Amino acid sequence: VPRYRLTLAYDGTDFLGWQAQAAGRTVQGDLEAALARLAGGDRVSVDGAGRTDTGVHALGQVAAFDLPRAWDPATLQRALNALLGRDLRVLDAALAVEGFHPRRDAVGKLYRYQADLGPVQLPQRRRLAAHLPGALDAGRVREAAALFLGEHDFASLASSGSSVKTTRRTITRSEVHLDERLLTYEVEASGFLRKMVRSLVGGLLAAGRADLTPADLEAALLACDRCRWPPPAPACGLTLVRVDY
Amino acid sequence: VPRYRLTLAYDGTDFLGWQAQAAGRTVQGDLEAALARLAGGDRVSVDGAGRTDTGVHALGQVAAFDLPRAWDPATLQRALNALLGRDLRVLDAALAVEGFHPRRDAVGKLYRYQADLGPVQLPQRRRLAAHLPGALDAGRVREAAALFLGEHDFASLASSGSSVKTTRRTITRSEVHLDERLLTYEVEASGFLRKMVRSLVGGLLAAGRADLTPADLEAALLACDRCRWPPPAPACGLTLVRVDY
Repeated sequence: VPRYRLTLAYDGTDFLGWQAQAAGRTVQGDLEAALARLAGGDRVSVDGAGRTDTGVHALGQVAAFDLPRAWDPATLQRALNALLGRDLRVLDAALAVEGFHPRRDAVGKLYRYQADLGPVQLPQRRRLAAHLPGALDAGRVREAAALFLGEHDFASLASSGSSVKTTRRTITRSEVHLDERLLTYEVEASGFLRKMVRSLVGGLLAAGRADLTPADLEAALLACDRCRWPPPAPACGLTLVRVDY
Repeated sequence: VPRYRLTLAYDGTDFLGWQAQAAGRTVQGDLEAALARLAGGDRVSVDGAGRTDTGVHALGQVAAFDLPRAWDPATLQRALNALLGRDLRVLDAALAVEGFHPRRDAVGKLYRYQADLGPVQLPQRRRLAAHLPGALDAGRVREAAALFLGEHDFASLASSGSSVKTTRRTITRSEVHLDERLLTYEVEASGFLRKMVRSLVGGLLAAGRADLTPADLEAALLACDRCRWPPPAPACGLTLVRVDY
């Protein structure tokens, strides 16, 4: 059977995340419902590159699925966009090689986090950025971001109850941009733990607000103890920008 | 009676523009309803710097009104933001001089227009940018934007039925930025005719798509004939960025 690969963008505000659930709107659920209509009622199971949480957005999520009959990819893209809401768009559709799996085959991911630091949240930013009012010390935020670069055991930032083999990850980009009361943080790695990006941002905020010095933050990272790490930043500021293969 | 001045930001998507109407949600209507509650039921009449059309956004709209009793401006700002929807925010509140009128006293305005040029509209841009798919010739768009600079009779771009004394206006900034399938146009003048910015953008698009050469566009401007000018761009891409006094 032919296998397809989609590149997806979504505004996650009105989704309960990626993963299909018994009740409530999800990205996987909406895609599977649309594909079932195109497949004449057959169930189509969709795999995603990242199981984004409730409220998380994407500019380059990747999904894959088998279809019972062959479709021209451009026609498939148009048909899906006609069935999906305007907050979920198929940016690209292509034939995939047999056995392609968007999560297992991924070699890297880029996430972006945005926070509106102004005293009043701009309506223009209310869907895609978290509102975290208060000035940040730009130097300390940059110093903290630089700490994350390279290979570390990120056990301090791992969600409890997750059963990954190792909590070691290698961060290849960790960049902060502060401008017009907007914090933008971009972080790239071959893989991330659950809630890891939001926890990294929690660390940046703690350093920028001087709750912790960058040295405290480094000690908290090395301690591999979740209790010593600041709380994760809200989901609504996070975007999965790109998945690399 | 004390007079107040507000700086407002709004996502215009869910408003029928600025001006209060018998039915339907408007920015002026929401503000006047919130102020009536704060004034104990008395009607409060709000003046605005620009009567933005349905779907037009603002980052720096200016409004003014009298209140029957004095309020601390910071308290007034907080009270209004507690009553208004999240798509309309008071960014600043201040006491105004007696007789201050946000439209008549304005000496300049800056507008920004954004258009998503990609084949599929990014969900992230669907509220604040118009979707106008198709590549534009960057050189021609810039050439057209440069034509608008300076003092001209913009009768070709004026709405029919408007009764302004003169259709001469002076444009002091006319800048195009094309990047990642996003057109951003910023235009500044001491004053604008109704729908003038959207008509200017209509001209840029016609030049960029090669429907008209920049020379044709210049001839259409000089002709002072509305029928020769391309149609205005959709309202949903327009933002009133700043009003100067």
